[in-house]
Amino acid sequence: MEIPITKAAEMVGGECVGDEKFVVTGINSLDQAGPREISFFSDHRYGESLKNTKAGALLVSKINAQFTGPQVLTAHVALAYAKLAAFFAVPPTRYPGVSSDAFISGDCRLGEDVSISPMVYVGKGCEIGDGATLFPGVVLDQGVKIGTRTLLYPNVTVLRGCVIGNDVIVHAGTTIGSDGFGFVRDGTSSVKVPQTGIVQIDDHVEIGANNCIDRAAFGKTWIKEGVKTDNLVQIAHNVVIGEHSIIVALTGISGSSRLGRGVLIGGQVGVNDHIEIGDGVMVGPQSGVAKSIPSGGIFSGTPAIPHRAYLQNTALVAKLPQFKERLRGLEKKVRELEDRLEKNGD
Amino acid sequence: MEIPITKAAEMVGGECVGDEKFVVTGINSLDQAGPREISFFSDHRYGESLKNTKAGALLVSKINAQFTGPQVLTAHVALAYAKLAAFFAVPPTRYPGVSSDAFISGDCRLGEDVSISPMVYVGKGCEIGDGATLFPGVVLDQGVKIGTRTLLYPNVTVLRGCVIGNDVIVHAGTTIGSDGFGFVRDGTSSVKVPQTGIVQIDDHVEIGANNCIDRAAFGKTWIKEGVKTDNLVQIAHNVVIGEHSIIVALTGISGSSRLGRGVLIGGQVGVNDHIEIGDGVMVGPQSGVAKSIPSGGIFSGTPAIPHRAYLQNTALVAKLPQFKERLRGLEKKVRELEDRLEKNGD
Amino acid sequence: MEIPITKAAEMVGGECVGDEKFVVTGINSLDQAGPREISFFSDHRYGESLKNTKAGALLVSKINAQFTGPQVLTAHVALAYAKLAAFFAVPPTRYPGVSSDAFISGDCRLGEDVSISPMVYVGKGCEIGDGATLFPGVVLDQGVKIGTRTLLYPNVTVLRGCVIGNDVIVHAGTTIGSDGFGFVRDGTSSVKVPQTGIVQIDDHVEIGANNCIDRAAFGKTWIKEGVKTDNLVQIAHNVVIGEHSIIVALTGISGSSRLGRGVLIGGQVGVNDHIEIGDGVMVGPQSGVAKSIPSGGIFSGTPAIPHRAYLQNTALVAKLPQFKERLRGLEKKVRELEDRLEKNGD
Repeated sequence: MEIPITKAAEMVGGECVGDEKFVVTGINSLDQAGPREISFFSDHRYGESLKNTKAGALLVSKINAQFTGPQVLTAHVALAYAKLAAFFAVPPTRYPGVSSDAFISGDCRLGEDVSISPMVYVGKGCEIGDGATLFPGVVLDQGVKIGTRTLLYPNVTVLRGCVIGNDVIVHAGTTIGSDGFGFVRDGTSSVKVPQTGIVQIDDHVEIGANNCIDRAAFGKTWIKEGVKTDNLVQIAHNVVIGEHSIIVALTGISGSSRLGRGVLIGGQVGVNDHIEIGDGVMVGPQSGVAKSIPSGGIFSGTPAIPHRAYLQNTALVAKLPQFKERLRGLEKKVRELEDRLEKNGD
Repeated sequence: MEIPITKAAEMVGGECVGDEKFVVTGINSLDQAGPREISFFSDHRYGESLKNTKAGALLVSKINAQFTGPQVLTAHVALAYAKLAAFFAVPPTRYPGVSSDAFISGDCRLGEDVSISPMVYVGKGCEIGDGATLFPGVVLDQGVKIGTRTLLYPNVTVLRGCVIGNDVIVHAGTTIGSDGFGFVRDGTSSVKVPQTGIVQIDDHVEIGANNCIDRAAFGKTWIKEGVKTDNLVQIAHNVVIGEHSIIVALTGISGSSRLGRGVLIGGQVGVNDHIEIGDGVMVGPQSGVAKSIPSGGIFSGTPAIPHRAYLQNTALVAKLPQFKERLRGLEKKVRELEDRLEKNGD
Repeated sequence: MEIPITKAAEMVGGECVGDEKFVVTGINSLDQAGPREISFFSDHRYGESLKNTKAGALLVSKINAQFTGPQVLTAHVALAYAKLAAFFAVPPTRYPGVSSDAFISGDCRLGEDVSISPMVYVGKGCEIGDGATLFPGVVLDQGVKIGTRTLLYPNVTVLRGCVIGNDVIVHAGTTIGSDGFGFVRDGTSSVKVPQTGIVQIDDHVEIGANNCIDRAAFGKTWIKEGVKTDNLVQIAHNVVIGEHSIIVALTGISGSSRLGRGVLIGGQVGVNDHIEIGDGVMVGPQSGVAKSIPSGGIFSGTPAIPHRAYLQNTALVAKLPQFKERLRGLEKKVRELEDRLEKNGD
């Protein structure tokens, strides 16, 4: 695949500066790009790589005088890179059609151009949308709905009645629709609370590898449009994750909590149950969100507090050895003052 | 399925107040219950939902004057709800019998009424108890024992020689019997210590999705009766978890540590290796338990300390900016006092 | 299997003291060893077990006067134990040859003595080295390379183009080669950045159960020789883990970060993106490594600081209640001093 650089510039809404005859055969990092590939520069941490790059062309936010090849000027280099990379990327290879080595139960509805690999299990009454792809080892329990063009990587499990929208990607090893963790104490033992709801995942969601998304006790656990989760994320029963929110790896969201739109949760964060996190809130890594947070703002620490206060507290903890010395010094001086006053005989 | 409300009251050991002719067709949350369903109220956080509910009947711990339908009075609403919900819940659909698309090795003993789905692998010499259910993608390595009525969800792996009791539930994607993390340093590299033990899981245990329970170096890693683990829990080699203990998501228990009976471990907790946590201890979320804890008591923080002290320390850290100001103020005053004494010429 | 104790001593480079005619039939822990087995003692925590052991022989670092059986004296007991245990350990049972119930795509190269279980999927163009073992439920996407004697446990997924070296062990449920978590914000939604690189795992690596190792955006995520990871570890795109490093359970290493040789990372640690951790660094459990760390040194806490400072700060936080009292006491005394000076009429 190759395109003229002018076409590449057009695709990303940028302006081509330099040799307009240059033909782009691919996109790559500064370190790895060859003379017929385009690369990108916007992060000063890669200054050294820029000096040594063999890339033939560059996506830049400001023309670079040292670089002699053609440059595509664009306000948002990272977005331009994502778009061009998507153009050049080889899509995952899909099994052609429905394998006779897959197990498809009766009463299923398979759309057009569905790809079902060997070693896939599809339970009774499932509906699989046009262009959907199921890799080997995928297990759909009964009554599961998979939207159009949705892609389930190997060894993904989707349990009874869960509904996954269109253009969703679920990475390998993820479990969707396991029972919520609901028990009631009866004396010293635990009685299971049946989890009768489902998980609903809306369009354009991407779920990382080895995630667990539990079904609701009643109703649904709901992952709204455009949400992206990293690997090893835990989402408990009846949680609602608002549109376009992002959750980084090893984070756990406890039962019935609700995240608003565009929330960003760092890695290894814990969110308490039955709380609300407002639209656009950012939570720093390893934080523990104990209470609801209104919209906006950056929070960090356990318990999570406004990030500025967290930084201040952290800095002050680091100064505790000095505080201790200052306390000791003050105590000494005060004793001396007392002694002096004493001697003064007052 | 439907039962008279008097029968429902009897099932939960409660007392029916109001229309005894009411017939219950199901149980649901306040928000979702219909006029022929029963709901439940005991948590003041749901007061608003109570006002708007369309439920026909209620489980309550105290008669609610606003609600006009029949009410079942019971001391323990949550337990009553769990019992009724279990009665109405549709059980997971089991594959009828042993699928010819499963792979069953020689020398296995399969009990009565076993359900083995397509795409299940059962290794040599396995024993599977009456009424057990293996969902698609389950892999039993050789010599595994599965108790009666035990349920393994899709893509669960149980490795060589591990023993799972009766009425156990293991959620999807969980690994039981992986090698314990045992290495000995030899100069700069690591020499593997063979893990020759097993995992034993006793009756009525429920293991969440994508858990890892490692086999013992020698002997067994032991999950005792009635234990419940949430998703993404790590249990290392030779750990013993006491009866009816509960472990919330993303927690890790390090090698050879022992938890007593009825221990409650919050989410994202780390427990050090070779320590003991006594009966009935509660450990707050995100704590790091560095040392053994005697029976009883609530612990929090890293390193974990009694919860009250943890709260106090956390509150004091939040006051460090004030402490800093007070220290500065004191230093200024002491300097002034010194100056005044100096001037006084003493 | 049995060997004379003199042979056992020779195997571990130790010296036999006592009855040289003793024949060793196995190795076991002090608690579980029988009179024909050898055990080991070097950890004072097991003193009580030593008193009660029925073991017939012992590996020791110093001759134990109480123990009457033969003893093998060796400087490094744990290593000696690992070596003898490896000798006696029963290796995992391999499926004999390539199962006709596995799905092997065209254009694959299978080495000599390969073991491929039923319910394994091997995609187009894969290469599988001599003596490699694939357990049931393993899925190799297209173009994957597996080295000689490498062992993949059940339900492991290796995605397109990833390369795994020789003598590697990957435990059950692990995903290798899932897409890195790369998105660019475009207004309020997220645009996926194609992840076009691979994962490369070098020789003698052991990866725990339910790990996630993401493929690189470009180039490779690289796990170098002899690395060992525990369960539920997350390794993001473009990370490099240096030779013989060790990563304990539930830890996450963020994108593009590089760990040196022989780094030890405790459990539940988070490592920030784009940082470097030098050779031989140790990071304590539950730490958050925010910035690069030069070679050597032990770090703890969030943000991670030198371990000694961390211990000091933690101890001082525990003393905050005392500090508060001391501050209050000082304020009172200073007020009194001021009053006295005031009264003195100066």
